[in-house]
Amino acid sequence: MFKKYNIIVVGGGHAGCEAAAAAANLGSSVLLVTMNMGTIAQMSCNPAMGGVAKGQIVREIDAMGGYSGIIADKTTIQFRMLNRSKGPAMWSPRTQNDRMRFAEEWRLQLEALPNVDMWQDTVREIIVKNGRAAGVVTSLGMSIESDAVVLTNGTFLNGIIHIGEKRFGGGRTGEKAATGLTEQLITLGFEAGRMKTGTPPRVDGRSLDYSKMEEQWGDSERGRFSFTDVPLPTEQRCCWITYTNEQVHETLKEGFEKSPMFTGRIKGLGPRYCPSIEDKINRFAERDRHQIFVEPEGWKTVEIYVNGFSTSLPEDVQQRALRQIPGFENAKMYRPGYAIEYDYFPPMQLDLTLETHRIKHLFFAGQINGTTGYEEAASQGLIAGINAHQRINDGHELILKRSESYIGVLIDDLVTKGTEEPYRMFTSRAEHRLLLRQDNADARLTPIAHKLGLVSDERLDRVKQKVEAADKLVAYMRDNAIGPDTLNPILHRVQSSPVTQKTRLFQILTRPQVGIYDLAMADTALADLINRSDREVVEQAEIKVKYDSYFEKEMEIVNKMRKMEDQEINPDFDYTALVSLSKEAREKLIKVKPRTLGQASRISGVSPSDISVLMIHMG
Amino acid sequence: MFKKYNIIVVGGGHAGCEAAAAAANLGSSVLLVTMNMGTIAQMSCNPAMGGVAKGQIVREIDAMGGYSGIIADKTTIQFRMLNRSKGPAMWSPRTQNDRMRFAEEWRLQLEALPNVDMWQDTVREIIVKNGRAAGVVTSLGMSIESDAVVLTNGTFLNGIIHIGEKRFGGGRTGEKAATGLTEQLITLGFEAGRMKTGTPPRVDGRSLDYSKMEEQWGDSERGRFSFTDVPLPTEQRCCWITYTNEQVHETLKEGFEKSPMFTGRIKGLGPRYCPSIEDKINRFAERDRHQIFVEPEGWKTVEIYVNGFSTSLPEDVQQRALRQIPGFENAKMYRPGYAIEYDYFPPMQLDLTLETHRIKHLFFAGQINGTTGYEEAASQGLIAGINAHQRINDGHELILKRSESYIGVLIDDLVTKGTEEPYRMFTSRAEHRLLLRQDNADARLTPIAHKLGLVSDERLDRVKQKVEAADKLVAYMRDNAIGPDTLNPILHRVQSSPVTQKTRLFQILTRPQVGIYDLAMADTALADLINRSDREVVEQAEIKVKYDSYFEKEMEIVNKMRKMEDQEINPDFDYTALVSLSKEAREKLIKVKPRTLGQASRISGVSPSDISVLMIHMG
Repeated sequence: MFKKYNIIVVGGGHAGCEAAAAAANLGSSVLLVTMNMGTIAQMSCNPAMGGVAKGQIVREIDAMGGYSGIIADKTTIQFRMLNRSKGPAMWSPRTQNDRMRFAEEWRLQLEALPNVDMWQDTVREIIVKNGRAAGVVTSLGMSIESDAVVLTNGTFLNGIIHIGEKRFGGGRTGEKAATGLTEQLITLGFEAGRMKTGTPPRVDGRSLDYSKMEEQWGDSERGRFSFTDVPLPTEQRCCWITYTNEQVHETLKEGFEKSPMFTGRIKGLGPRYCPSIEDKINRFAERDRHQIFVEPEGWKTVEIYVNGFSTSLPEDVQQRALRQIPGFENAKMYRPGYAIEYDYFPPMQLDLTLETHRIKHLFFAGQINGTTGYEEAASQGLIAGINAHQRINDGHELILKRSESYIGVLIDDLVTKGTEEPYRMFTSRAEHRLLLRQDNADARLTPIAHKLGLVSDERLDRVKQKVEAADKLVAYMRDNAIGPDTLNPILHRVQSSPVTQKTRLFQILTRPQVGIYDLAMADTALADLINRSDREVVEQAEIKVKYDSYFEKEMEIVNKMRKMEDQEINPDFDYTALVSLSKEAREKLIKVKPRTLGQASRISGVSPSDISVLMIHMG
Repeated sequence: MFKKYNIIVVGGGHAGCEAAAAAANLGSSVLLVTMNMGTIAQMSCNPAMGGVAKGQIVREIDAMGGYSGIIADKTTIQFRMLNRSKGPAMWSPRTQNDRMRFAEEWRLQLEALPNVDMWQDTVREIIVKNGRAAGVVTSLGMSIESDAVVLTNGTFLNGIIHIGEKRFGGGRTGEKAATGLTEQLITLGFEAGRMKTGTPPRVDGRSLDYSKMEEQWGDSERGRFSFTDVPLPTEQRCCWITYTNEQVHETLKEGFEKSPMFTGRIKGLGPRYCPSIEDKINRFAERDRHQIFVEPEGWKTVEIYVNGFSTSLPEDVQQRALRQIPGFENAKMYRPGYAIEYDYFPPMQLDLTLETHRIKHLFFAGQINGTTGYEEAASQGLIAGINAHQRINDGHELILKRSESYIGVLIDDLVTKGTEEPYRMFTSRAEHRLLLRQDNADARLTPIAHKLGLVSDERLDRVKQKVEAADKLVAYMRDNAIGPDTLNPILHRVQSSPVTQKTRLFQILTRPQVGIYDLAMADTALADLINRSDREVVEQAEIKVKYDSYFEKEMEIVNKMRKMEDQEINPDFDYTALVSLSKEAREKLIKVKPRTLGQASRISGVSPSDISVLMIHMG
């Protein structure tokens, strides 16, 4: 009863939504299959997007023509640029969001895409023909054909929820798990694993005493994720910060003997960098307090997300401990925190396009690949959606480089190194993070998206204009100098040492104490240029000047490594013939099927001498 | 870990929301337990409120201080006063609503009530102490104590969904069923039954051709449910009407051999007046078409509800048949229609307060009592919530009379006659429907709600002022007359026969052709009075005059019957001692425990001679 679709996307979370949208925007007919059309794009965990490294990913998604940034901007109840006091590579945008609005806006966004159809059902089987994914079979018994399938099942595959000693099946609390699919994939030869994640209790904000907490407001000068002109809400809501204490920890410890984490009932590994509160007090026994970030769930609702208090301890222990936190003395829970175990598929089974090695035209994105985080999921969805479309249209595959995006780092890490615990992005994972800033995501990626056909000419022009305008400002500062008479009073004010001769603006601006607006006061032509430029252009120019030497060095490294990165390896390369390879290297190379010498060099177990063997062989 | 609550409400649908709100507003501490806080106040069926008889119920709920009317008004995408061409007793307000907004506004409304707490969980057991409900036990293993419990489980108790030959557990599609509670209640001696209801497929509005359908817009002069000043959305959305045809029916018939309805797999009886499309073509074989009402699901979403096409035939048959409907040639389904079977408890086990006979302090409201419809559910919730509060505070119980409200008719019918098929309200069920109009629900019920403490003095004053102002207008028309010279030109215009002498305005207005605004043109003092009155006051006065004689007759009947209705019977009355009663009457009387002689007389199997026996005995 269904037409044949180009692409079926299974799952309507962050990954599924981006995958469906990207493929549809490229021209594929897409069917999004979701268990419940009422829960599309649920923020299952905290009501926020972005943050350190994750904010950069959202900016990259936006620069690529994805929607996560736009939806987040539309539904922002608070915006903060984290790490403003550090270098620009560390600046990370984050929003708090209205949970209900976020889901609603995504749903409406998908509805606005003419190539996206939706079907409410659960996929229990992939149709495979000639080694290729060719559709899905659902719980309602539908066989729906397609040219490619993208799986974004989140935590639903054989999901089991744990609270203390209780456990029950479910994909999220109050929702059903999905069964059958893992089993089929294993039959097809896939390796599956088990992971775990968790979420804190939700509480009734009316029962909290905010006077005992620290207020945390958003930035007064509002930033945004999207490089488009999506209008932002005018108001912002306050968040709060409070802390656990030793009493809280003692209470929590009383529940340890019933903890599914500590009694071995939970087998899967949890997210190291987003640990449960019991994990934190266990691993960091020396710390007498942990921060709790009190996040409102939306504009009007009183529901509160207790960030930092993720737990699967028995619910009575949760409540007693919670009530020992300042401000939470009378906290009423709406529901307890819980841990959830689910199936994932170790991502070394994937190509850099996110297509599986084993079954062609089958793509995996999001938590099914062992990642954690909305942003990580969404970006994989975007790439999988793009590559699914390109694959079935014999188009160029899209593989973002590590040197051009966090998304490239994420996927290269997953596919090359695998992961045994939920993978989360950090700036430290990106060796070229100086180049991968939130401010230049558009310059880095919009040209690529434009080439694919994901963004309009107009949007590309805008990026070019921004870059050119910034370059013009930089050029002016390179070409013009001012003398000590004009300059020294300003330098004196910002407590920077005086100059003795005429000095180029560029050189002055590299001083940490001096800002571009300081220079504008000394040079009316510069001031005039600035006044005629957008704020982001000025910021861009300032960053370019201030960090010029760092960027230059970084680019040198990138260029040096490019030789390896550009040295392609045929994915069907026969490693068995290369007897000089170590046994481990051979096995890993066969498993990962690296696309470049660079990727091969990052595989654990592949040594520099193995790389030499490859290099010699490849000439 | 929970404090003891006054009242626990189980279920967050229309009944549960009204029950929680009413009890909380009366001063009870309330815990609303819902399986999923994300699905509170879901419109599980069509995105509309009110309609014939149901609209009157919503007005009554509003007059009683309930919220269904307010929420519906806030989220209205279209308003129509049905039956405007008929007498005012038939006027029935109906709204189309934004499904997502409706749920959101209810959620926010509940959050705004300081006495309402919420807990996300599934109740699997009622705690009973000394024959009284004293709390609940949940799936998470919580024991939560309370003084009273209100069950509003909807279709979730052992819910089984049918689509063609497929069936699976679920409370709604995509949601889990609830188990355990029925079994416990049966152990406690309750009688349980099985009912069935259904829902049509949801389709993608972008795939419809509206040019082949009839547009149906809302009223240009917007009405509302609520007697309060809740602001209404300014715009309205269009609905459409189309029809099935013989081709559609033939296609549907191809699926009959796989129909769970016709093959006996579904045991429960479905709603007679909201039948599935297969039922309609089966029962009304002579009709060559059935109306399909095409309802948008909200302001912005493209999702469409195919009202009139409820079905549990196999999904491929659904789609083929759907596509033979004009405008649906390319219809894409989001999900198929389905039937759902669920447990209910025959309502003769309840008192008129909706408390169960068997377990004190336990109240049932909504589909658990065998009713169908949001409005029926909501009104029962309101009454159950009020009576639960009154019960545990030794307050007066609230029993609305048949002569004062549809809600009274509904509950009296349920409790006195029981129901074996989903009970839906009709104007024909109300013997005094001339008095039970949507326009006077406030005059009928707000004084009662005020006495209970559910509405403010201010609100009562407003009702009084409205009634007084209308009475003043009526009095003016009774007291003043106009002569033929002024009157006859107007009568000529409206094609009513001329008068020959000075005639009272009142008398002229009783003529069907004459409206109050016609009269105003003949009498400047009346015009002046009208200009200084609210629209609803003028309407009220006009209705009072036009139908005066009918109302008078109706009141006579009510007063005659009042003797029986006012003759109370002790609920513990020992019918076994009355040997002259027929055996059937005795059994039924013992079962129903009627509260008045009037109620006793309506019990099927209780004959007028049985009533005489009772009357003699009671003196």
